[in-house]
Amino acid sequence: MSLTRVHNLSISLDGFATGEPQSLDAPFGHAGQRLHEWMFATRFWDASGSAGVDDVFAQRHGVGIGAEIMGANKFGPPGWQDDPGWTGWWGAEPPFHTPTFVLTHRPRPDLVMEGGTTFHFLDAAPAVALATAREAAGGQDVRIGGGPTVVQDFLTAGLIDLMHLVVVPIVLGRGVRLWDGLEGLEQGYDVEAVSSPRGVTHLTFTRKASARDGQSDRPAQGGVS
Amino acid sequence: MSLTRVHNLSISLDGFATGEPQSLDAPFGHAGQRLHEWMFATRFWDASGSAGVDDVFAQRHGVGIGAEIMGANKFGPPGWQDDPGWTGWWGAEPPFHTPTFVLTHRPRPDLVMEGGTTFHFLDAAPAVALATAREAAGGQDVRIGGGPTVVQDFLTAGLIDLMHLVVVPIVLGRGVRLWDGLEGLEQGYDVEAVSSPRGVTHLTFTRKASARDGQSDRPAQGGVS
Repeated sequence: MSLTRVHNLSISLDGFATGEPQSLDAPFGHAGQRLHEWMFATRFWDASGSAGVDDVFAQRHGVGIGAEIMGANKFGPPGWQDDPGWTGWWGAEPPFHTPTFVLTHRPRPDLVMEGGTTFHFLDAAPAVALATAREAAGGQDVRIGGGPTVVQDFLTAGLIDLMHLVVVPIVLGRGVRLWDGLEGLEQGYDVEAVSSPRGVTHLTFTRKASARDGQSDRPAQGGVS
Repeated sequence: MSLTRVHNLSISLDGFATGEPQSLDAPFGHAGQRLHEWMFATRFWDASGSAGVDDVFAQRHGVGIGAEIMGANKFGPPGWQDDPGWTGWWGAEPPFHTPTFVLTHRPRPDLVMEGGTTFHFLDAAPAVALATAREAAGGQDVRIGGGPTVVQDFLTAGLIDLMHLVVVPIVLGRGVRLWDGLEGLEQGYDVEAVSSPRGVTHLTFTRKASARDGQSDRPAQGGVS
């Protein structure tokens, strides 16, 4: 079964997944790199990094993934749609290595990059985008790559099977919140928390079998699917 | 040295320390008891409860405390000021056992309860209330008992030395937020996180020695005071 997954989405204590204002020079606004320092310290990011619990979680990012969906605000700074030469933040070889669907109200032709990443631009609602990405994933899982607004949209639509968040012990005060409009989210998920020696807390939301579409008769203790 | 401490303040993932609307029948609004179930399962609350990490944190609540300050919204439901017979939620013997200062714009005479609790009603800014409570604490520490608005006010005023929060894995969606207006709070504190087997995460904010009033020359590694 192909799952829909979120990985390594870092938020502040007050629930912001990015600061403000976002720009070419400051993709995460006033948050700078503070939400992601935990990741830079892992082997996932840097071969000389730590192989502990932060790394173990970070490494799940690509395993079994056949496609990504991201929001327009992840693909570029505000206004990138006006620059026909913009090909994303990541240079010639982006770190996705799969078909990658960028949700935007202003689609453009596909961009074939090195290393297996092809950017497709879609103006579509979450369920339609997911069906398209799932088809492209060839039986593997689909990652919802963020930003927070896109993850929120997919959660609201009931489309996320597994979500890994990283709570960083800073208070950003402003930016884009993840949690708005998600009252009661935990009811459909088994939620686990584990703190790392570095001070971040990994939260995993694993969808209850009973909360899956079309599987409401299945006992919740039905095991891993 | 007498410290100003916060203990066992439970918040949802989205940072609400109480739901809404608050009333006589529902002191925490739609949150019900969900923010505090972790505590009910500890020996601190119930002699047959667990003695693990949740209990260890919970037990700190009263140790070394000589006075409490609480907000009007902790003392009673909206409108309690209009009821001259209201003596708090806690019956004849409240669990404070010290002088307890209730911040309200409508003070009333002291209430001497059983078990060592005396309620004093103060219309005062945080620093003034703290000086009053510290005097009454006889050299012991002062607990800021909540709710979230009062804790926020004392944090904003730079008056909290130690804060223990408990993040409960639920998304409340609405209520009273703790974090508003506290951007950059972590800069004055050493922050630690530890998750418990029950699924909550204990956060401790320990004020850096260098961030204490009048001690800015003191090295941050100056040790426990």
